[in-house]
Amino acid sequence: MLTLFQYNWQVREDWFSWCEGISEEELLKQRVGGPGSLLYTLFHIVDVEYSWLVGLQGKEEPEEPPFEHYATLQKVKQLSHEYHMEVVRPFVKAWTDDMEAQTLSETNANGETISFRHGEVMRHVIAHEIHHVGQLSVWAREIGKPPITANLINRGLFDKQ
Amino acid sequence: MLTLFQYNWQVREDWFSWCEGISEEELLKQRVGGPGSLLYTLFHIVDVEYSWLVGLQGKEEPEEPPFEHYATLQKVKQLSHEYHMEVVRPFVKAWTDDMEAQTLSETNANGETISFRHGEVMRHVIAHEIHHVGQLSVWAREIGKPPITANLINRGLFDKQ
Repeated sequence: MLTLFQYNWQVREDWFSWCEGISEEELLKQRVGGPGSLLYTLFHIVDVEYSWLVGLQGKEEPEEPPFEHYATLQKVKQLSHEYHMEVVRPFVKAWTDDMEAQTLSETNANGETISFRHGEVMRHVIAHEIHHVGQLSVWAREIGKPPITANLINRGLFDKQ
Repeated sequence: MLTLFQYNWQVREDWFSWCEGISEEELLKQRVGGPGSLLYTLFHIVDVEYSWLVGLQGKEEPEEPPFEHYATLQKVKQLSHEYHMEVVRPFVKAWTDDMEAQTLSETNANGETISFRHGEVMRHVIAHEIHHVGQLSVWAREIGKPPITANLINRGLFDKQ
């Protein structure tokens, strides 16, 4: 489980660096086929990862903060790093296989109780980021810039094993 | 490991069904930001999953077959199902954690030997499909059709556990 999170974190940092070379206007431009702008998509990735993991810790999942308060690259990076150090990294590092089958129960918009396995939520979070990064890669080409590689091999993720 | 493959297989089938409602011209139209057309992207996903898993079985990885021979939805589906039954599903079903650290060695284009852990290749294959499906989702909106959901939750993947 840890390796796929580490992959996402590495790819996200690469995209943050990539964004340094893009104008604010391009970063905030509304785009077709994803959550919104390039920057909002990164903000959304950061928020969704954090919120689910807060939920898995048995706490109430926070509402998404207003994007207007975070609508610069530096602020989204800062938020990502804060969430990462406070909640995300410690939780993922402490993950063990016996947590897989634990249940997270929530009330949906219709007032019904819905339940997920913790292992299901973890994989949902992993897939969520990779999916949205696929969208970033299309928009990058539309802007005329090569996207960050999505390759998981050749990132040194398995060097210590 | 199995669950993320099952997620990809389910999402792929959903995209195959989605493609039934799309004209051949749209399916084959070259698009910006991915491997090529919608249909070629699905073909590429199918080919890459199969080729790596053949490699992990200790056999020589096949060249990508000529896309011209598979350039209809029915033929790509057929190829996906053949590969799935022959190689992909049996290999993934038989996967055990002690296979993680096995090494796959290859010669790259410069004649250098490169090595990957089997666990690294498996995760690369998983991320590869999710990434390209993210690209499909942008193109779907460009065509004006809602994409297949990328949600991993609510797919029944954990119902038996």
